[in-house]
Amino acid sequence: MSAAGEGDHAYNPYTRSCPSRRLLRELGELWSVLVFGALYDGPLRFTEIARRVDGISTKMLTQTLRTLERDGLVSREYYTESPPRVTYALTELGRDLADVMDALEKWAVGHMDEVLAAREAYDAEHAG
Amino acid sequence: MSAAGEGDHAYNPYTRSCPSRRLLRELGELWSVLVFGALYDGPLRFTEIARRVDGISTKMLTQTLRTLERDGLVSREYYTESPPRVTYALTELGRDLADVMDALEKWAVGHMDEVLAAREAYDAEHAG
Repeated sequence: MSAAGEGDHAYNPYTRSCPSRRLLRELGELWSVLVFGALYDGPLRFTEIARRVDGISTKMLTQTLRTLERDGLVSREYYTESPPRVTYALTELGRDLADVMDALEKWAVGHMDEVLAAREAYDAEHAG
Repeated sequence: MSAAGEGDHAYNPYTRSCPSRRLLRELGELWSVLVFGALYDGPLRFTEIARRVDGISTKMLTQTLRTLERDGLVSREYYTESPPRVTYALTELGRDLADVMDALEKWAVGHMDEVLAAREAYDAEHAG
Protein backbone atom coordinates (compact mmCIF):
# COMPACT_ATOMS: atom_id res chain seq x y z
CA MET A 1 0.00 0.00 0.00
CA SER A 2 2.35 2.64 -1.21
CA ALA A 3 0.92 6.08 -1.85
CA ALA A 4 2.92 6.29 -5.03
CA GLY A 5 1.69 4.03 -7.83
CA GLU A 6 3.19 0.58 -7.63
CA GLY A 7 3.27 0.00 -11.34
CA ASP A 8 1.40 -3.30 -11.07
CA HIS A 9 -2.06 -1.80 -11.60
CA ALA A 10 -3.67 1.04 -13.43
CA TYR A 11 -5.65 2.51 -10.54
CA ASN A 12 -4.43 4.64 -7.66
CA PRO A 13 -6.86 6.14 -5.14
CA TYR A 14 -4.17 8.55 -3.94
CA THR A 15 -4.66 10.41 -7.22
CA ARG A 16 -7.70 12.61 -7.02
CA SER A 17 -9.03 11.90 -10.50
CA CYS A 18 -8.75 8.10 -10.31
CA PRO A 19 -12.13 6.32 -10.33
CA SER A 20 -10.85 3.99 -7.60
CA ARG A 21 -10.93 6.92 -5.16
CA ARG A 22 -14.62 7.42 -5.74
CA LEU A 23 -15.27 3.68 -5.44
CA LEU A 24 -13.32 3.54 -2.19
CA ARG A 25 -15.35 6.46 -0.83
CA GLU A 26 -18.56 4.69 -1.78
CA LEU A 27 -17.62 1.32 -0.29
CA GLY A 28 -16.49 2.86 2.98
CA GLU A 29 -19.85 4.59 3.49
CA LEU A 30 -21.46 3.43 6.72
CA TRP A 31 -24.65 2.39 4.92
CA SER A 32 -22.76 0.30 2.38
CA VAL A 33 -20.91 -1.54 5.14
CA LEU A 34 -24.10 -2.21 7.10
CA VAL A 35 -26.10 -3.31 4.04
CA PHE A 36 -23.31 -5.73 3.18
CA GLY A 37 -23.50 -7.04 6.72
CA ALA A 38 -27.27 -7.42 6.54
CA LEU A 39 -27.00 -9.41 3.30
CA TYR A 40 -24.07 -11.50 4.49
CA ASP A 41 -26.19 -14.41 5.65
CA GLY A 42 -28.47 -14.50 2.61
CA PRO A 43 -30.98 -12.61 0.43
CA LEU A 44 -33.43 -10.22 2.07
CA ARG A 45 -36.37 -8.09 1.05
CA PHE A 46 -36.13 -4.32 1.17
CA THR A 47 -38.19 -4.09 4.35
CA GLU A 48 -36.09 -6.78 6.03
CA ILE A 49 -32.88 -4.87 5.30
CA ALA A 50 -34.49 -1.66 6.57
CA ARG A 51 -35.44 -3.43 9.79
CA ARG A 52 -31.93 -4.78 10.37
CA VAL A 53 -30.15 -1.50 9.66
CA ASP A 54 -31.78 0.54 12.40
CA GLY A 55 -32.32 4.15 11.42
CA ILE A 56 -31.64 3.95 7.69
CA SER A 57 -34.19 5.98 5.75
CA THR A 58 -36.10 4.53 2.82
CA LYS A 59 -34.44 7.07 0.56
CA MET A 60 -30.94 6.21 1.76
CA LEU A 61 -31.52 2.47 1.50
CA THR A 62 -32.95 2.84 -2.01
CA GLN A 63 -29.95 4.89 -3.04
CA THR A 64 -27.42 2.55 -1.41
CA LEU A 65 -28.95 -0.54 -3.02
CA ARG A 66 -29.07 1.13 -6.43
CA THR A 67 -25.41 2.13 -6.19
CA LEU A 68 -24.37 -1.35 -5.10
CA GLU A 69 -26.48 -2.94 -7.83
CA ARG A 70 -24.97 -0.67 -10.47
CA ASP A 71 -21.50 -1.63 -9.23
CA GLY A 72 -22.35 -5.31 -9.68
CA LEU A 73 -22.14 -6.04 -5.96
CA VAL A 74 -25.81 -6.64 -5.20
CA SER A 75 -28.47 -8.22 -7.42
CA ARG A 76 -32.25 -7.86 -7.38
CA GLU A 77 -34.19 -11.07 -7.76
CA TYR A 78 -37.82 -11.02 -8.85
CA TYR A 79 -40.04 -13.94 -7.98
CA THR A 80 -43.30 -14.01 -9.92
CA GLU A 81 -45.28 -15.35 -7.04
CA SER A 82 -48.56 -13.97 -5.90
CA PRO A 83 -47.94 -11.44 -4.53
CA PRO A 84 -44.64 -10.95 -6.40
CA ARG A 85 -41.54 -10.91 -4.28
CA VAL A 86 -38.28 -8.95 -4.73
CA THR A 87 -35.15 -9.80 -2.81
CA TYR A 88 -31.63 -8.41 -2.72
CA ALA A 89 -28.57 -10.61 -2.59
CA LEU A 90 -24.81 -10.24 -2.78
CA THR A 91 -23.40 -11.20 -6.17
CA GLU A 92 -20.25 -13.28 -6.43
CA LEU A 93 -18.24 -10.04 -6.66
CA GLY A 94 -20.15 -8.65 -3.68
CA ARG A 95 -19.52 -11.78 -1.68
CA ASP A 96 -15.81 -11.36 -2.23
CA LEU A 97 -15.96 -7.81 -0.90
CA ALA A 98 -18.25 -8.83 1.97
CA ASP A 99 -15.38 -10.51 3.77
CA VAL A 100 -13.41 -7.25 3.76
CA MET A 101 -16.45 -5.30 4.94
CA ASP A 102 -17.01 -7.88 7.64
CA ALA A 103 -13.43 -7.51 8.82
CA LEU A 104 -13.88 -3.73 9.10
CA GLU A 105 -17.12 -4.11 11.03
CA LYS A 106 -15.63 -6.73 13.34
CA TRP A 107 -12.63 -4.50 13.94
CA ALA A 108 -14.81 -1.57 15.04
CA VAL A 109 -16.91 -3.76 17.32
CA GLY A 110 -13.92 -5.67 18.69
CA HIS A 111 -11.81 -2.61 19.51
CA MET A 112 -14.50 -0.20 20.65
CA ASP A 113 -13.37 -0.40 24.28
CA GLU A 114 -9.78 0.44 23.40
CA VAL A 115 -10.90 3.36 21.24
CA LEU A 116 -13.16 4.69 24.01
CA ALA A 117 -10.27 4.44 26.48
CA ALA A 118 -7.97 6.27 24.06
CA ARG A 119 -10.54 9.05 23.65
CA GLU A 120 -10.87 9.44 27.38
CA ALA A 121 -7.09 9.72 27.78
CA TYR A 122 -6.86 12.19 24.90
CA ASP A 123 -9.65 14.39 26.26
CA ALA A 124 -8.12 14.38 29.76
CA GLU A 125 -4.76 15.41 28.32
CA HIS A 126 -6.24 18.14 26.15
CA ALA A 127 -8.71 19.51 28.70
CA GLY A 128 -8.51 22.99 30.10
CA MET B 1 -22.01 -10.74 11.01
CA SER B 2 -25.59 -10.93 12.11
CA ALA B 3 -27.58 -7.73 12.21
CA ALA B 4 -29.10 -8.80 15.48
CA GLY B 5 -26.71 -8.72 18.43
CA GLU B 6 -24.79 -11.94 18.77
CA GLY B 7 -24.56 -11.82 22.51
CA ASP B 8 -20.79 -12.19 22.49
CA HIS B 9 -20.05 -8.48 22.56
CA ALA B 10 -21.60 -5.32 23.89
CA TYR B 11 -21.47 -3.29 20.66
CA ASN B 12 -23.71 -3.49 17.63
CA PRO B 13 -23.39 -0.99 14.77
CA TYR B 14 -26.83 -2.01 13.44
CA THR B 15 -28.29 -0.16 16.42
CA ARG B 16 -28.38 3.53 15.74
CA SER B 17 -27.27 4.68 19.17
CA CYS B 18 -24.30 2.32 19.49
CA PRO B 19 -20.92 4.12 19.51
CA SER B 20 -19.55 1.42 17.20
CA ARG B 21 -21.75 2.79 14.42
CA ARG B 22 -20.11 6.17 14.66
CA LEU B 23 -16.65 4.61 14.81
CA LEU B 24 -17.42 2.51 11.73
CA ARG B 25 -18.58 5.62 9.88
CA GLU B 26 -15.39 7.41 10.85
CA LEU B 27 -13.04 4.58 9.87
CA GLY B 28 -14.71 4.08 6.50
CA GLU B 29 -14.21 7.73 5.55
CA LEU B 30 -12.15 8.02 2.40
CA TRP B 31 -9.62 10.30 4.09
CA SER B 32 -9.13 7.90 7.00
CA VAL B 33 -8.47 5.01 4.63
CA LEU B 34 -5.98 7.02 2.56
CA VAL B 35 -4.16 8.45 5.60
CA PHE B 36 -3.80 4.93 6.94
CA GLY B 37 -2.38 3.92 3.59
CA ALA B 38 0.04 6.82 3.56
CA LEU B 39 1.32 5.91 7.04
CA TYR B 40 1.45 2.19 6.31
CA ASP B 41 5.13 2.16 5.42
CA GLY B 42 6.29 4.38 8.27
CA PRO B 43 5.99 7.78 10.01
CA LEU B 44 5.53 10.90 7.93
CA ARG B 45 5.37 14.63 8.47
CA PHE B 46 2.13 16.49 7.88
CA THR B 47 3.33 17.91 4.58
CA GLU B 48 4.46 14.49 3.40
CA ILE B 49 1.02 12.99 4.08
CA ALA B 50 -0.61 15.92 2.31
CA ARG B 51 1.60 15.32 -0.71
CA ARG B 52 0.75 11.62 -0.87
CA VAL B 53 -2.98 12.06 -0.48
CA ASP B 54 -3.55 14.17 -3.55
CA GLY B 55 -6.28 16.76 -3.09
CA ILE B 56 -6.76 16.56 0.68
CA SER B 57 -7.10 20.03 2.17
CA THR B 58 -5.03 21.18 5.12
CA LYS B 59 -8.20 21.51 7.15
CA MET B 60 -9.40 18.00 6.31
CA LEU B 61 -6.02 16.43 7.01
CA THR B 62 -5.74 18.27 10.33
CA GLN B 63 -9.22 17.07 11.29
CA THR B 64 -8.60 13.48 10.15
CA LEU B 65 -5.31 13.23 12.04
CA ARG B 66 -6.85 14.68 15.19
CA THR B 67 -9.72 12.20 15.07
CA LEU B 68 -7.36 9.28 14.51
CA GLU B 69 -5.05 10.49 17.27
CA ARG B 70 -7.95 10.83 19.69
CA ASP B 71 -9.03 7.28 18.83
CA GLY B 72 -5.56 6.00 19.68
CA LEU B 73 -4.83 4.96 16.09
CA VAL B 74 -2.21 7.54 15.19
CA SER B 75 0.45 9.15 17.38
CA ARG B 76 2.29 12.45 17.06
CA GLU B 77 6.00 12.32 17.70
CA TYR B 78 7.92 15.48 18.54
CA TYR B 79 11.64 15.60 17.90
CA THR B 80 13.38 18.50 19.59
CA GLU B 81 15.80 19.04 16.80
CA SER B 82 16.58 22.36 15.26
CA PRO B 83 14.24 23.04 13.62
CA PRO B 84 11.86 20.83 15.64
CA ARG B 85 10.23 18.02 13.74
CA VAL B 86 6.77 16.47 14.16
CA THR B 87 5.83 13.18 12.57
CA TYR B 88 2.70 11.05 12.56
CA ALA B 89 2.79 7.28 12.90
CA LEU B 90 0.36 4.41 13.32
CA THR B 91 0.12 3.16 16.89
CA GLU B 92 0.03 -0.56 17.62
CA LEU B 93 -3.76 -0.39 17.56
CA GLY B 94 -3.66 1.58 14.31
CA ARG B 95 -1.29 -0.93 12.76
CA ASP B 96 -3.76 -3.69 13.52
CA LEU B 97 -6.51 -1.76 11.74
CA ALA B 98 -4.20 -0.80 8.87
CA ASP B 99 -4.29 -4.34 7.50
CA VAL B 100 -8.09 -4.16 7.22
CA MET B 101 -7.90 -0.71 5.60
CA ASP B 102 -5.28 -2.03 3.22
CA ALA B 103 -7.53 -4.93 2.25
CA LEU B 104 -10.36 -2.50 1.46
CA GLU B 105 -8.09 -0.29 -0.62
CA LYS B 106 -6.62 -3.26 -2.47
CA TRP B 107 -10.12 -4.59 -3.15
CA ALA B 108 -11.21 -1.31 -4.75
CA VAL B 109 -8.07 -1.08 -6.87
CA GLY B 110 -8.08 -4.76 -7.79
CA HIS B 111 -11.74 -4.90 -8.84
CA MET B 112 -12.12 -1.50 -10.46
CA ASP B 113 -12.35 -3.01 -13.96
CA GLU B 114 -15.13 -5.39 -12.93
CA VAL B 115 -17.05 -2.57 -11.26
CA LEU B 116 -16.67 -0.33 -14.31
CA ALA B 117 -17.93 -3.16 -16.56
CA ALA B 118 -20.90 -3.72 -14.23
CA ARG B 119 -21.77 -0.02 -14.33
CA GLU B 120 -21.65 0.00 -18.11
CA ALA B 121 -23.98 -3.00 -18.29
CA TYR B 122 -26.34 -1.46 -15.74
CA ASP B 123 -26.48 1.87 -17.54
CA ALA B 124 -27.11 0.17 -20.90
CA GLU B 125 -29.94 -1.84 -19.39
CA HIS B 126 -31.50 1.16 -17.69
CA ALA B 127 -31.07 3.61 -20.56
CA GLY B 128 -33.97 5.18 -22.39
